[in-house]
This record gives sequence, structure tokens and C-alpha cells, in this order.
Amino acid sequence: MLDAMTSRADTAGAQPQRARRRAPAGAAVLREDVTEAIRAAVFEELAAAGYARMSIEGIARRAGVGKTAVYRRWRSKLHLVLDLVSAVAVQGLPAPDTGSLETDLRLLYEVTSRALRHPVAGQIIPDLQAEAARNPEIAEAMQKALREGQQSVASGIVRAAAERGEIRADIDEDLALDLISGPLYWRAVVVRSPKLPKGHLPALARATTAALKAL
Amino acid sequence: MLDAMTSRADTAGAQPQRARRRAPAGAAVLREDVTEAIRAAVFEELAAAGYARMSIEGIARRAGVGKTAVYRRWRSKLHLVLDLVSAVAVQGLPAPDTGSLETDLRLLYEVTSRALRHPVAGQIIPDLQAEAARNPEIAEAMQKALREGQQSVASGIVRAAAERGEIRADIDEDLALDLISGPLYWRAVVVRSPKLPKGHLPALARATTAALKAL
Repeated sequence: MLDAMTSRADTAGAQPQRARRRAPAGAAVLREDVTEAIRAAVFEELAAAGYARMSIEGIARRAGVGKTAVYRRWRSKLHLVLDLVSAVAVQGLPAPDTGSLETDLRLLYEVTSRALRHPVAGQIIPDLQAEAARNPEIAEAMQKALREGQQSVASGIVRAAAERGEIRADIDEDLALDLISGPLYWRAVVVRSPKLPKGHLPALARATTAALKAL
Repeated sequence: MLDAMTSRADTAGAQPQRARRRAPAGAAVLREDVTEAIRAAVFEELAAAGYARMSIEGIARRAGVGKTAVYRRWRSKLHLVLDLVSAVAVQGLPAPDTGSLETDLRLLYEVTSRALRHPVAGQIIPDLQAEAARNPEIAEAMQKALREGQQSVASGIVRAAAERGEIRADIDEDLALDLISGPLYWRAVVVRSPKLPKGHLPALARATTAALKAL
């Protein structure tokens, strides 16, 4: 999820399937380049201003379009953000499958830490988490994005390790996922350490492997 | 830090030292009960509206005082929040010292998880983390609160375990702190699971102990 979220902010590739699906029968087809410019503008506005301060006016200005171009596609800023979060989730992270729990975790951490270091991710994710605390629709979209992104990859790694007998077959999967995802997120979002020291990710993978084996 | 933050929101005890220190020489002494009513109102406003939407007007209304009563004490809402975060930090969490790494961790997790489950903590902390991403003064105050609260307790536990020889004397302390604090925070703030299953915290303490021994 994180990786897709950040790369989406950098590029504005056309998405013919998505745009066509949204146009109601008989309506004028929405221009895909405008849709993509608006999507990119939302990520930039979210990072700069945050969800609470972000406005449709600001998004339209940044995208170089009129406000009606935004409202023709999304009913409100809530719907805009929910749509972006959902679109990002389905893309998912690559799922490592090296035959070793520790190596799988190291690969997962390399991808995740690159994504978390991206300044856009570092601002947008904490912001949407904060909004989720008081907006059930955002909370639900974030949960879904999480389940289908980061958590589904981590869960694949845990199940493969259980099948190989590296960890207990009846391991508490929720707790295993907390142990896998928590430390790197804490470092990126709470401690906000700009750069990880050399050897950090391999040591984290080694320690987390030991933690999962002790469950 | 978390525990102090939530209990402060529930009670509004007088703090004569603090109030007296703030009054400039020759100025009228500020009424302590008004100061405490404003502090309590800030926590409630932060939880309900969030930092970005929170206003001095809303705080004054909730505290049942005039806007000038707020401005007489703090220059801006930024200074108000910074002052609260700093005041909370110095109180700290109780530091467990049972002679066993695993038991120390279990006690730390019990205190922390109670604090994180509090609805006020669940809304205010993600919100201030989000603000920290775009406001260096808030980021610095949060870092300081973190270092003097949660991180200093966790760091005491790690050092005691190293002295006893339970873990390496030259352990990477930053990574150890990520492993200790990350999983519970991830569960509370990202997964937002309302209730932990029975046996969760002892299992987390056991797994984290194994992780620290593998470092």
C-alpha cells in the first residue's frame, strides 16, 4: 500500500479502465488526464495542508482545473480521499517468498522502509490515521487498505513460515502481524528518524524472526 | 507520558507551583481554577475537533471563560498545546524493575495499553503526530515528551537487562526501543483494535524478550 501510494504521487499515468467505469451511461466521458492531475494534486495537498485544512478549491487550483471538474468526479473531499485510499490498496506490495522467514522479512522491510521514508508518505499516513480516529468512513477505508496491502503481505509470509514448520502452525496471527509491522512504523512515524543506520533492517528481521519463533 | 496525559484529562487538580511561576512580577496572579479549566477544555477540544480545527474560541466556550482568559495565559493555540505536551512529559510512567526483562516488559505493556485504550489518547496522539509532520515546534515537543516518557522507561528496562546479562551489553538501544514500543502502538493506532484478546500482553512480552535476546 505505502509503496503504491508514493509512486502514484510521482507519476500520473492514464487509467482508462477506471475512468471509463466511472462515467455514467450517456454522460460525457471524463478526460483521463484531468482526473490524473486531480489525483496528483490531492496527494500534494494532503501532504502540505492535511485532510482537515485541505479544500476542493486548493486541489482544483493545484491541478490547474476548475472546481466543477473536481465535483463532476467526486461528491466531496471525503469521497475523493476514500477513493484514492481504496485505489492504492488493491495494488499491494510485492510478496516475498524466499523459503526463509528471516529473508522474507528483510525484503518486506526494505520495500516498506523505502516507502515510509518518502516525505509524502510520512505526512499523509499519520494525517489519515488521525482523521480515522474521528471519521468512521475514513477509518474503514484505511482498515481495508491496510488489510489488502501491508497486512496481507505480512500474513502470507507468516503462513508460509508456518507451513515450513519455522513457526507454530497455530500461531496468533494478529500478534505476529503487530510484531512484524510495529517497529518500523514506530520508527518512521513516532520517532521520525530520518535515516536508518547501516545494518538496521537485517537486525530487525533477525530479532522479529526470533520473536515469532517464541510465540 | 500516555498515562499522565489521559489522567490529566479526567481530573483538574490545582497546580500552584506552575501557575505562580507563570505570573510575571507585579502582574495580577492568574486564577488556578481557570487555568485548570482551560487545560481540561484543550484536551476535550483536541479529542473532538483535532489540532487543525481547534480554536481558542472553542476552548474558551468549553471552559466557560472568555477568550482573553486564554490569551492572558498562552499566546496562541500552538503555545497552549506545546505547554500541555511538555507538562505531561515530565510526569513519566512508573518504571518497572522486577529483576526480569520479560516481567518488566509485561508491566510496561499493561500500563501503556491501558493508556492507549483511553479514547482521549486514541484521538489526541495520532492527531499531534500528524501535526508534527508539518510543524517543527510540535514535532520537537512530541520528541521531547517521547524521550522523557515512554522511551526513558523502556530504556531503563533495557539497561537493567543488559546489566544482568540477559541481553548483550552493547545492544543497539534505538532498535531495542522500536521493538519494545512498536507492536502495541501499531495495534492501538493503526489496526485500532478495540480490545486485546486474553493473554495478548504476556505473549507480546515473551516474544519481545526473545527479539531483544536475538539482537
